[in-house]
Amino acid sequence: MSTAVLDLTKDLIRRQSVTPEDAGCQQLMAKRLEALGFTIESMFFEDTLNLWARRGQGKPLFCFAGHTDVVPTGPLEQWTSSPFEPDIRDGMLYGRGAADMKGSLAAMVVATERFLATHPELTGDIAFLITSDEEGPFINGTKRVIEVLESRNEKITWCLVGEPSSTKNLGDVIKNGRRGSLTGYLTVKGVQGHVAYPHLVDNPIHKAAPALAELAQTVWDQGNAYFPATSFQISNIHAGTGATNVVPGDVQLTFNFRYSTEVTAEQLQQRVLAILDKHQLHYSIDWILNGLPFLTDSGELVAAAVQAVQHVKGYTPSLETTGGTSDGRFIAPTGAQVLELGPCNGTIHKINECVAVADLEPLADMYQHILQQLVAK
Amino acid sequence: MSTAVLDLTKDLIRRQSVTPEDAGCQQLMAKRLEALGFTIESMFFEDTLNLWARRGQGKPLFCFAGHTDVVPTGPLEQWTSSPFEPDIRDGMLYGRGAADMKGSLAAMVVATERFLATHPELTGDIAFLITSDEEGPFINGTKRVIEVLESRNEKITWCLVGEPSSTKNLGDVIKNGRRGSLTGYLTVKGVQGHVAYPHLVDNPIHKAAPALAELAQTVWDQGNAYFPATSFQISNIHAGTGATNVVPGDVQLTFNFRYSTEVTAEQLQQRVLAILDKHQLHYSIDWILNGLPFLTDSGELVAAAVQAVQHVKGYTPSLETTGGTSDGRFIAPTGAQVLELGPCNGTIHKINECVAVADLEPLADMYQHILQQLVAK
Ligand SMILES: [Zn+2]
Ligand SMILES: [Zn+2]
Repeated sequence: MSTAVLDLTKDLIRRQSVTPEDAGCQQLMAKRLEALGFTIESMFFEDTLNLWARRGQGKPLFCFAGHTDVVPTGPLEQWTSSPFEPDIRDGMLYGRGAADMKGSLAAMVVATERFLATHPELTGDIAFLITSDEEGPFINGTKRVIEVLESRNEKITWCLVGEPSSTKNLGDVIKNGRRGSLTGYLTVKGVQGHVAYPHLVDNPIHKAAPALAELAQTVWDQGNAYFPATSFQISNIHAGTGATNVVPGDVQLTFNFRYSTEVTAEQLQQRVLAILDKHQLHYSIDWILNGLPFLTDSGELVAAAVQAVQHVKGYTPSLETTGGTSDGRFIAPTGAQVLELGPCNGTIHKINECVAVADLEPLADMYQHILQQLVAK
Repeated sequence: MSTAVLDLTKDLIRRQSVTPEDAGCQQLMAKRLEALGFTIESMFFEDTLNLWARRGQGKPLFCFAGHTDVVPTGPLEQWTSSPFEPDIRDGMLYGRGAADMKGSLAAMVVATERFLATHPELTGDIAFLITSDEEGPFINGTKRVIEVLESRNEKITWCLVGEPSSTKNLGDVIKNGRRGSLTGYLTVKGVQGHVAYPHLVDNPIHKAAPALAELAQTVWDQGNAYFPATSFQISNIHAGTGATNVVPGDVQLTFNFRYSTEVTAEQLQQRVLAILDKHQLHYSIDWILNGLPFLTDSGELVAAAVQAVQHVKGYTPSLETTGGTSDGRFIAPTGAQVLELGPCNGTIHKINECVAVADLEPLADMYQHILQQLVAK
C-alpha cells in the first residue's frame, strides 16, 4: 500500500526523533518545501532544531505549525511492532508519532504540494513553523521562533496546528483555543519537633489543612461559552521523613490551575495568596506560568476549517478548548488566528500509538481545502 | 578516680551494645547478681537477649527494670572521645549509654550489693528485668519477658525503671506514668488523572484536607491532674509522583496520638473514623498501639522513691508523666506499681552523651534507700 501521505508519514516515523532530537525529519520536510519555492531557515536554539519555511513575502500569511519530536517509547517489549518501524495492521499505521504528529506533518507537506500544483501562479503566502521540542520543556522551540518572527515584525495571520484534535472520527473536533496553565510551588513552614512535646512544635500540615480545604472548595469562575470553569488541582504534597514520632518542619505542595479567559494569572495568584494569608500561614511560593489561555472564536480560519471538514467528511466539527496545552499558546498572543486540526488522539503518548491509514489522505484533503479557501482567494 | 558505680558504668559503656546487641552487659550484671544469690534466667527471643534475675520466691516482689542496649552513635567524628571508650572530662563521664542507661544499671547492681551486705539474713524478694531492645522495635524485650512471667503467674509488686528521668538535678523528676501512644496509617483514596481533565479525577488531597483540618482542630480531652491533654500530630503526608500535571490516586498519612487516661485507644479510633466518615472519604487505615497509658499515682513505691530523693538530695521530686514512651508501659498493665528514676536526660540519644560522675553514687544511694524501705521492712 502506498499513498503520498502514508509514505511520508512512514519516512518520518523511521526517524527516531525523541525530544529534543529531530533526527532529520525537518530536513526531509525542508527538501520537499524548497522544491516548491519555500525559503528555508533552520533555527537551532540550544538543543532544539526548528524550521521556519516560507513562500512569499506578502500578507496575509497562512502557517502550518507542528512538531517533529515524539515522546519516549516506554517499555519496548510492550510494543507489538518496533515503535520506529512503521507497521500496518488492520488498517492502522503503528509507530511512535504516527498520530502525534508525523501523520499531520506529512499531510501538511503533501497538501501544500498538491495545492501549489493546481495553482502554479499563486502569490499568496504559506509558511511552516516546525519545532523539535513540543513534547519537552518547550523553551527553545516555537516560543523562540515566534520571538524571532516578532523581532522582525513577521506576522502570521492564520495558523493551523496539526495536533491530533479528533476524538472518534477524523475532524469531529477542532481545538479553537486552550486554557491557561499556572503552576504554584508552595512551602508552608512550621516548627519541627517530637510528637511527645506538642507545645514545642508548630505542625505545618495542621496549619496548611484548612487553607488547602478552602483552596479546593473555591469556585474560581464559571467559565464562559468557550471555556469550562477554571480548575484547581493539588498534584503533590510531601512532608515528613517517615519517622512516626517527628512533626516535620514544613510541608511542600505543588498545584496547577487550568484557567479560562474569565480570569488572569495575576488574579489567581492574588486570590491564592489572600487565602494563605487569611489562614495566617508562614509560607514561600514560586509560580510558573506554563501558558496563557487563547481563543479563536470566529474568523476566516474557523470558517475555512469547518467548511473543510464538512466538505471532506460530511459532518460539522465541534469547536472545543478542552485538554492540555499546545504550542498554539505561543502563537496566539501575536494576534494570529490559531486552530488545531489533526487525527484521532486516542493512542497518543501510549504504547502502540497509531493512526488510521484511511484518515491520512482525508486529512491532507482538509488541509488542501483550507489552503484553497484562504490562500487561493 | 574509682568508685563501685563508676567502674561498673565504665565496664558497661565499653561493651558496644547498639540495639539489639547486648554485647556481654547482661552477663557482667548476672555474675554479680549470681554471687548475691540471684537465680539467673536468660531469655533469648529472636535477636534479643533478656535477663530475668530473681532472689527469693515470695511476695511482695521488688524489681529493677532497664535496658542494656543503646542508640547508634551518630557520626563518630562529632564525638570528642570515642563513644565506647568511657572518658571523664570536667566531672562528666562521656560515652554512649552513660545516661541512658548504663549508669542506672551499675547503680542498681551496686545498690543491691550494698543493701544485701547490710541485710545478710534478708528474705524479701528482689528481681532484675533487663532487656537489650528498649531502643529498638521493643517486640522481643520487656514485652515478651512479661508474657513469660504472666504465664507462670509471677507478679511484680513494685518496679523501678532506671530511665533517665531527671532534668536539671538528680532526682528532680520521677516519672510516675506515661501517656499512651497510638499511631494511625491512613490512605485516602481518589481517582488519578490529568489535571487538564478535572471531571475525570477525584483529588484525594482535596477530599482529605477538610477532614485533616477537623482532626487537627479537635480537642480530644482536657487531660487530668496527672496527664496533659491528649495530643494529635500528623507526622507524614505524601501524595504525587512529582509530575505537576497529574492528580494522584491516593494520599498517605501517618499520625500519632499521645493520650491521657481520660480516653482509650478504642475511643480515639472511633472518633477518627467518625470524622473520616463524616467527610465521606474512601480510605483504609491501619493502627499500631505503641503503648497504653499508665499511672502510679500513689502507694508504697511512690512514697519510698520520694523519700529516697529527699533523703539523698534534700529536695522533693516532682512526679510527671511527660515525654516519650518507656518499657514501663509493658509492666504497668500487670498491676505493678511502676516508677522511673534515673540520671539527667539532657544528652541522651545525642552526640557526646554523658552523665555527671557526682550523680552516680547518689543514684545508687537512692536505689539502696528504696530497697531499704520496701524490701527490708
Ligand atoms: Zn503533539
Ligand atoms: Zn532508655
